[in-house]
Amino acid sequence: MLSGLCFIGGKWQADTEVTFNAINAAKHTKLAPNFTNCSNEQLDQACLLAEQAFVMYRKKTVQQRADFINEIAEQLVKVEPLLVARTPLETGLPEARIQGELGRTVNQLRLFANNIIKDTLEIAHDTAIPDRAPIPRPDMKLSQLPLGPVAVFGASNFPLAFSTAGGDTASALAAGCPVIFKSHSAHPGTCEIVAKAIEIAINNCDMPKGVFALIHSKAYDISHVLVKNPAIKAVGFTGSYRVGMTLQKSIYQRKEPIPFYGELGAVNPQLLLPGLITDKANDLAQEFVASMNMGCGQFCTNPGLWLVNESEQAQFETVLADKINSCPAQVMLTPTMLTAYQAGCDNIAKQATVVAQGQAQDKKATTYLFVTSADAFMSNDKLHDEVFGPASLIVTYKDLAQAAKLIDILGGQLTASVHGTTDVINENKDLVEALSYKVGRLIFNQMPTGVEVSDAMMHGGPFPSSTDVRSTSVGSQAINRFLRPICYQNSPM
Amino acid sequence: MLSGLCFIGGKWQADTEVTFNAINAAKHTKLAPNFTNCSNEQLDQACLLAEQAFVMYRKKTVQQRADFINEIAEQLVKVEPLLVARTPLETGLPEARIQGELGRTVNQLRLFANNIIKDTLEIAHDTAIPDRAPIPRPDMKLSQLPLGPVAVFGASNFPLAFSTAGGDTASALAAGCPVIFKSHSAHPGTCEIVAKAIEIAINNCDMPKGVFALIHSKAYDISHVLVKNPAIKAVGFTGSYRVGMTLQKSIYQRKEPIPFYGELGAVNPQLLLPGLITDKANDLAQEFVASMNMGCGQFCTNPGLWLVNESEQAQFETVLADKINSCPAQVMLTPTMLTAYQAGCDNIAKQATVVAQGQAQDKKATTYLFVTSADAFMSNDKLHDEVFGPASLIVTYKDLAQAAKLIDILGGQLTASVHGTTDVINENKDLVEALSYKVGRLIFNQMPTGVEVSDAMMHGGPFPSSTDVRSTSVGSQAINRFLRPICYQNSPM
Repeated sequence: MLSGLCFIGGKWQADTEVTFNAINAAKHTKLAPNFTNCSNEQLDQACLLAEQAFVMYRKKTVQQRADFINEIAEQLVKVEPLLVARTPLETGLPEARIQGELGRTVNQLRLFANNIIKDTLEIAHDTAIPDRAPIPRPDMKLSQLPLGPVAVFGASNFPLAFSTAGGDTASALAAGCPVIFKSHSAHPGTCEIVAKAIEIAINNCDMPKGVFALIHSKAYDISHVLVKNPAIKAVGFTGSYRVGMTLQKSIYQRKEPIPFYGELGAVNPQLLLPGLITDKANDLAQEFVASMNMGCGQFCTNPGLWLVNESEQAQFETVLADKINSCPAQVMLTPTMLTAYQAGCDNIAKQATVVAQGQAQDKKATTYLFVTSADAFMSNDKLHDEVFGPASLIVTYKDLAQAAKLIDILGGQLTASVHGTTDVINENKDLVEALSYKVGRLIFNQMPTGVEVSDAMMHGGPFPSSTDVRSTSVGSQAINRFLRPICYQNSPM
Repeated sequence: MLSGLCFIGGKWQADTEVTFNAINAAKHTKLAPNFTNCSNEQLDQACLLAEQAFVMYRKKTVQQRADFINEIAEQLVKVEPLLVARTPLETGLPEARIQGELGRTVNQLRLFANNIIKDTLEIAHDTAIPDRAPIPRPDMKLSQLPLGPVAVFGASNFPLAFSTAGGDTASALAAGCPVIFKSHSAHPGTCEIVAKAIEIAINNCDMPKGVFALIHSKAYDISHVLVKNPAIKAVGFTGSYRVGMTLQKSIYQRKEPIPFYGELGAVNPQLLLPGLITDKANDLAQEFVASMNMGCGQFCTNPGLWLVNESEQAQFETVLADKINSCPAQVMLTPTMLTAYQAGCDNIAKQATVVAQGQAQDKKATTYLFVTSADAFMSNDKLHDEVFGPASLIVTYKDLAQAAKLIDILGGQLTASVHGTTDVINENKDLVEALSYKVGRLIFNQMPTGVEVSDAMMHGGPFPSSTDVRSTSVGSQAINRFLRPICYQNSPM
């Protein structure tokens, strides 16, 4: 049974009477129960408790912290049936996807737990040189400390892996930072189920009650109050550019500057070098259409922009149209997103040509493929924005000099892919190098969807794809966002 | 002969007629020549050239970049006589200090040059697992790229090591980032001499002309125009809290958020645990008085706040007074700083008791030691600010519980020192742990002045000592401020 309450200081509680409901993504109807908006006073309390919990939590051994995080994973596995029953209703995502995403979320928690046990916090050690002239060198150890309480905002499109116990929460807890998690109003029931698993882990591992809080609210204001609270020392966010920028503004109002790790999405350009389509149009089209429709196109790494040589355009479009025409319509995460997607496609259709469209169905998103020329694209900003959903835009280039110009005007991206034979790639090293400065992850001959949770992953990128190009929100390195260096000089300890 | 011009695109030039002069620090008189303010148009040009230079500079091999940085070091050694003639006039610092600081600056350049050759940019490598179920793992390499053009603002108190070719410039160039350096209006002649050494290195190593620019201006506005320019991708600053915060505000006005590495100073608290003074009052007092007077107290790590057990206060003060009374008056970096220092001491004298003061002399700073109680300190914000110069404040605590409260209200600091026997330190681990969360460097039984340029150094700290606690402005790790991760997936290259 879902309570609809906030989880603060180890207690499920409400002190407002303002409520909201999750919406059935497929039927567009309200789901029970009512979720209660967090009050500013409750939020202040959560921040105070997080600050107090920090002093205890940071003193836990890495083994104790790892045990806690592994216990969260353990408890998550147990709530799989609850998630499989609730999350598809809230998100429209199929059961198999929820099961897969839960596995990924659990593995992610275990990865961070294992890493803090096996990795040392020590970055460098300069030993003393007592007889150095003109003055002795002291012994210095460079280690790391957690930043303090972290505010985390989950994403709509990954209700588990980028949400309550997702990558931001897992890496912050692993670093030694308490977390205040603002639930996503599209899947608050899922958030509650996961928070209850965390509650059990807190109790089983005897962790301070303030180490994790879940707050609900459909009022935007609470998010801004949260990031402005002096107790908060870092913010993790995955969501839209628009919301990310309003949070950034609130963070700028703080006296103390803190890091803002906002992952804001991208169009993930796909550069198709000349010659490839001629050779393997069908295979490429197959991969593209599968990638752009994955999760109803609602992935941060969805391939939204394809740069295609104009001499190969006609051949490619023929193959693509055939595949796209048969794409079934899909349920989107929320009715609001569906409306925004349809409006986005309508806008693009006014500026570019429709190559093909998939099947249409009430309350579902239709796949769209558009095409325009490089000249039209470069002179029309309306074509540059991400359309969140299963739509892609082909931009045709006359030659590689024009492709270089296209790349030059692109904003920062999470990913880009280069598609071409090794020979053609090697002949165009400057173009590839230029593209690398626009992205966080540069992919060769593979689709951008699918983000590995591993040591070498970079999920982030130059602005506006993220607000901090120096960090990744996925993979082992994500923990570094919540740590900072400290030098211990001449320490007897 | 000094030209008084800006150095932009490899040319010494001026396009305004507004000029300013450096001031003889000892005599408070103007020094020739006139230095010409940079115009906004010249600055835009410098940014454009830096952006263009970046595309070429980032493609240089690490060996080429290291050769360039070593050549700057080589050319700096050659201008030692010019610096020894000019810098003491501009700064009031003695010749020996300038020679020592030049050595440090040269070594720092060589350290970064050596490091980029010996260190790999690769952070992690996940090899492909083609037969992994349910989907294969691609090959992923996590490497690093330079951020782009960097704006650097030098400090008044280290006219070489934290200025034109100082740590910020050296680490940015090593990372692959062009630098636009805003000269310090207190030592523009020193900046020109160093920039001329860099000019020769650019020519000798065939580097792009836009890789380094020197701009002069006494108008504050130009600094704000510089940090708001879209070509600038990071800012390094060492200076006052007040100026740092105005720059931060301008950076917040940018569309693209960029990292701001501001090192803003601190009072560097010295915690004297009970029992130590009784044992070694004289040795401790000797070290303290030497440290607080070093460079006329104009070090970022000057020990400005001493926390002393009230039962040992009288004994310590007697020994300290004796030593401080004989401290000679010293020349400060600028007449403005001298005035600010005197005003700061006058303000503290109204709120606290003067323990001792050194010798007085016209146009020179007198050493001051003040004392107050923990209660008075905690209830009076006027006692918390850094007084830049040779002044320190003793705050007496009744017991270690009160010392803990004192530490709790402290703002972020570059450093703190714990003075005590190993036994007493071990008995007070919680106190020491709490102090560690206030500082970038925690020192045991040593003075905070003296910052090693080495692998394990952390020169930075929680706000307000710096604007980015995750970074250091000194030591090998300083290069990380100007690099960001990139993942290459399935790369054929």
